[in-house]
Amino acid sequence: MKFTIPKQSLVDAVSHVNIAVSSRTTIPVLTGIKLEVDETGCTLTASDSDISVQVHVPPTSLDIAHGGKVVLTARLFVDIVRKLPAETVEVEVGEQYTTTIRSGQSQFQLNGMDPDEFPRLPQMQGERTFSVESSLLKTMIRQSSFSVSTVETRPVLTGVFWQLNDGVLRFTATDSHRLALREAQVEVAGEPQVNEAIVPGKSLVEMNKILKDDDRMVDVVLTDNQLLVKTENLLFYSRLLEGNYPDTSRIIPQSSKMTAILNREDLLGCIERASLLTKSGKNNVVKLTADDDLLQISANTPEIGKVSETVDVTELTGEALKISFNAKFVIDALRALDSEQVRVSFTGAMAPFVIQPTDQDAILYLILPVRTY
Amino acid sequence: MKFTIPKQSLVDAVSHVNIAVSSRTTIPVLTGIKLEVDETGCTLTASDSDISVQVHVPPTSLDIAHGGKVVLTARLFVDIVRKLPAETVEVEVGEQYTTTIRSGQSQFQLNGMDPDEFPRLPQMQGERTFSVESSLLKTMIRQSSFSVSTVETRPVLTGVFWQLNDGVLRFTATDSHRLALREAQVEVAGEPQVNEAIVPGKSLVEMNKILKDDDRMVDVVLTDNQLLVKTENLLFYSRLLEGNYPDTSRIIPQSSKMTAILNREDLLGCIERASLLTKSGKNNVVKLTADDDLLQISANTPEIGKVSETVDVTELTGEALKISFNAKFVIDALRALDSEQVRVSFTGAMAPFVIQPTDQDAILYLILPVRTY
Repeated sequence: MKFTIPKQSLVDAVSHVNIAVSSRTTIPVLTGIKLEVDETGCTLTASDSDISVQVHVPPTSLDIAHGGKVVLTARLFVDIVRKLPAETVEVEVGEQYTTTIRSGQSQFQLNGMDPDEFPRLPQMQGERTFSVESSLLKTMIRQSSFSVSTVETRPVLTGVFWQLNDGVLRFTATDSHRLALREAQVEVAGEPQVNEAIVPGKSLVEMNKILKDDDRMVDVVLTDNQLLVKTENLLFYSRLLEGNYPDTSRIIPQSSKMTAILNREDLLGCIERASLLTKSGKNNVVKLTADDDLLQISANTPEIGKVSETVDVTELTGEALKISFNAKFVIDALRALDSEQVRVSFTGAMAPFVIQPTDQDAILYLILPVRTY
Repeated sequence: MKFTIPKQSLVDAVSHVNIAVSSRTTIPVLTGIKLEVDETGCTLTASDSDISVQVHVPPTSLDIAHGGKVVLTARLFVDIVRKLPAETVEVEVGEQYTTTIRSGQSQFQLNGMDPDEFPRLPQMQGERTFSVESSLLKTMIRQSSFSVSTVETRPVLTGVFWQLNDGVLRFTATDSHRLALREAQVEVAGEPQVNEAIVPGKSLVEMNKILKDDDRMVDVVLTDNQLLVKTENLLFYSRLLEGNYPDTSRIIPQSSKMTAILNREDLLGCIERASLLTKSGKNNVVKLTADDDLLQISANTPEIGKVSETVDVTELTGEALKISFNAKFVIDALRALDSEQVRVSFTGAMAPFVIQPTDQDAILYLILPVRTY
């Protein structure tokens, strides 16, 4: 293998695949990035047990002397590529995978690894399940994945549940104390063979680092055990979680006894301040009191102090209410939203309450209260 | 105590004193910030065993109902002050140091601590030893303090040695493998009573966070065991290290056998690249070879790979040379400099070498080579 590539193309490619490199693994080849060069261009691949990322650099931007393949230690290769002095980079693989990297007056020689030991990617190209704007998929992930469970007692809850029905893609995430729902119209290609998947939350966090915040369409392929997201020159694979996702549709209240409409950032700031006194505690519990036209947030940690604040409300309707909740859950939800105003709907002191933006129905957060007596 | 203060003044003040708050201490009151209000204004103080910081807010920007004092837990107080919703803040101390903080519609009540338990600051105001531009002092600290020792086997080496002679302030720092020297003219007030001090490197790192990068003069007071730096509304105290600083004047070579003048950033980039292959090792050793008009940097770590690069030189004079050194020491020195060109002077493969900017004599770095046979 011997080829020349613009430095910036190589920097972009290694930065993208690098997110799939195993940091802790007993299999040396998985600490590497695989480079493969043939007449179709240069392909870089990295993989851990959960996700794989492949980036393709088209031959038009390359100068290929001859093809070949090698695996290079990612940590080192990425650092070197980023620091190379010139605008172009020449990569040449010699005997025993010894790889020479030349750029300007700098010449590195790295011990490479056998590319045939590198795992194969799942064979699933082609059968597009749906397409979605890159920025929309990014937003859907950001507005749902924070609600997944971080404990492994119920593994399916560490994933986001994807459902595709009648052209509507729905994401559900819950850690059993709170729930996030996010829906959007997507472009479906025929009748999908698979229309449900539980995608690991960690995979989505990594995927979001790669997805661009632009309006280009990405293709998504779902199979029984793999998810593939395709952008222009990049393939992102994630394994799926096995098991049955719980039916969460029943727990979303259909009516409310008290509803408050208020400025999202005002409420967020108020709860953030209250949680300063409680976040060191186990439950981070703050209290909301609604009576007449007044909505008050308060917290009390006797060994530290207490806080109370009246929040300005745009509209307050329904019965008086006192309710306690984990401030973090409400803060997470309010930070994930982009709307100016939110509607908070309560059905009782011990019943879950709902936070929604006032400007659309496609997002819903449900939070369970905390018993404080 | 009851007074009103602009939020931004309070944010600035607590942020400055916060750097002196003990994070780990068995004395509860040292985790706090002391607030004191009287007719001269509001004074905030924090102190750990090494440094103390005091900020004074003049009465013109305050509305004082009545004076008093209290100590508030710093971590909480700083977080709260930064998050307060309105432009002004009212602080009121009630019984048993219970302190009410009001801002907009937000009201905090914190358990305060007895201010009489708070340590007194050293009594040393008045006798100015010298004055120096704030930005110059900041630069002198940045260009010297990285060379102090981080191990406690010779405690004096964890400090920067300050010497004041004939209006010249000299900073010396060495960890016995490398040495940094930085001199500058300062404004001396008469004959100083104390003209030498060993200032803990850690104190200087904290001091540099507070010093502004502007041309206002700061007054420095030295006593036998304390340093005080005074800016407009701020006092920074540091204890000094006891002991005798070694005489380092003899180890600076007065002649050289080979001298290279080269672009600082070119050399820095080249050594940073070479150290990518060696930094995971214990000594981070890279090799410099100078012969005829060629200067080459190389490194070899058999289990990883090797690298070599020719550096463009502006001027190369003297004998051919091969020398090995810890890349980190040279990188630290080159990063600390601001000049476009540097002069590196060697006296032999096993002798210390000197790095200096070409545009001034007030800075000198000396680095010991590494034996590699």
